[in-house]
Amino acid sequence: MKLDDLLIQIKIKSSFLCIGLDTDMNKIPKFLLNEDDPIFSFNKSIIDHTNKYCVAYKLNTAFYESRGVDGWASMKKTIDYINNNYPEIFTIADAKRADIGNTSKMYAQSFFTEMNFDSLTINPYMGSDSVKPFLEFKNKITILLGLTSNLGAEDIQLKTSNNDYIFMEMIKSSKLWGDHNNMMYVVGATKTEFIQKIRREIPDHFLLVPGVGAQGGDLNEVCKYALNDNIGIIINSSRSIIYASTNEGFAIAAANQAKILQVQMSAILDERN
Amino acid sequence: MKLDDLLIQIKIKSSFLCIGLDTDMNKIPKFLLNEDDPIFSFNKSIIDHTNKYCVAYKLNTAFYESRGVDGWASMKKTIDYINNNYPEIFTIADAKRADIGNTSKMYAQSFFTEMNFDSLTINPYMGSDSVKPFLEFKNKITILLGLTSNLGAEDIQLKTSNNDYIFMEMIKSSKLWGDHNNMMYVVGATKTEFIQKIRREIPDHFLLVPGVGAQGGDLNEVCKYALNDNIGIIINSSRSIIYASTNEGFAIAAANQAKILQVQMSAILDERN
Repeated sequence: MKLDDLLIQIKIKSSFLCIGLDTDMNKIPKFLLNEDDPIFSFNKSIIDHTNKYCVAYKLNTAFYESRGVDGWASMKKTIDYINNNYPEIFTIADAKRADIGNTSKMYAQSFFTEMNFDSLTINPYMGSDSVKPFLEFKNKITILLGLTSNLGAEDIQLKTSNNDYIFMEMIKSSKLWGDHNNMMYVVGATKTEFIQKIRREIPDHFLLVPGVGAQGGDLNEVCKYALNDNIGIIINSSRSIIYASTNEGFAIAAANQAKILQVQMSAILDERN
Repeated sequence: MKLDDLLIQIKIKSSFLCIGLDTDMNKIPKFLLNEDDPIFSFNKSIIDHTNKYCVAYKLNTAFYESRGVDGWASMKKTIDYINNNYPEIFTIADAKRADIGNTSKMYAQSFFTEMNFDSLTINPYMGSDSVKPFLEFKNKITILLGLTSNLGAEDIQLKTSNNDYIFMEMIKSSKLWGDHNNMMYVVGATKTEFIQKIRREIPDHFLLVPGVGAQGGDLNEVCKYALNDNIGIIINSSRSIIYASTNEGFAIAAANQAKILQVQMSAILDERN
């Protein structure tokens, strides 16, 4: 998928919501455990009920890998289901991969070709030649970890070098590896002062922002600093949507939570125009 | 497996060789392509012929994931085969994972519990709370990327902060997250001046050193600076061993290459005693 197609969907749906399918066998409704593939059954219902409110689904690979080969099969069935039934939806493999060049190329083949995701999150710690193999795939988007919102960000990302933070130095370097048509950045939602700083450095790139709950508490604050003239953000919400209820109506409850965020996003977009 | 058990094997076999099973469908002997699972058939032969010369096998997850669900099945069959037939061998999932805490816990479950690897390589970019969930698993080893030998290391790892390199700052911080019984570090073999520096900072930790070819060119140089009183290194070689030949005798050719390195290692160990 091209970024232009994502942008069209954002405008059609008045939404820049991404729903995180962090599907955990211990958290899905108990009655689904009788199904052949409970993880896929859960995802299918969530997707069928929420797709009109979101423009993207993000699959966190860890949740699938924790169930080994069966988990990978559930992940493959889920991405195939989205691609076959809702091809307009942007798909993200939240895998945080990267390695030396020939190995990164293998990861790119895995997620871009074999699994057919539109995009993949990448850990930039190993630098340019670990990232560039991903950028060689046409109509695929490489999403670099820009700044994460966890405490451990202090250990490397928030150290300073050349009078700037390491994560800013990385963003400055990485601007030369690709462009805003084939790269995005993950930026944690909890640090609005950093979002401003990042937006100044990369005014045109899309940002993938996790960490905004169904409460919408931070949504306005994030949008104030992260939106650009081309919208330029996707906001992810996972648990507060997909685990909104554990009874038979779980997918409807998830849709209601997604709709609450979509309505807020629609209002923000209206205000900007 | 405990580190003590690895050390016993190193002494029994006079070897600190790790063989990297970076198994690529395009590089294995053509006659194997008729097998049900060519990747597993190749690995099984390599393992059966080389196990007496090495103390560890490292599976690079990218090579398996590039074949999707089938690739994960080949990886699972391979690790099960090693655990069932050669339980004395130390196994490494070279996966370079890490994410926020609850997600890292899922990756730990995947590789330590579900797949039953002894150890896992971790990308430390997200810091302490992304690494600690791995350290909570008993008798499992977390292997942090210390310093990689690719060009891109310049982009983050070799930047300076507080008058030291970022990779050194990371190593200093990470010493507090675990100890030499549950942590190792990956250190690229091409930079002996850095190996010296790292060894001074962490005298007791095992180092996993990739990048030494069958030529043994750098082996003596690496050992000179990396060996400690408790041996303290595992040296990985992948392609030069497993792709030594593509004819019917490929596994014997691989064994011969592994033996060349084992003999060199044995001589180095003899010299130290």
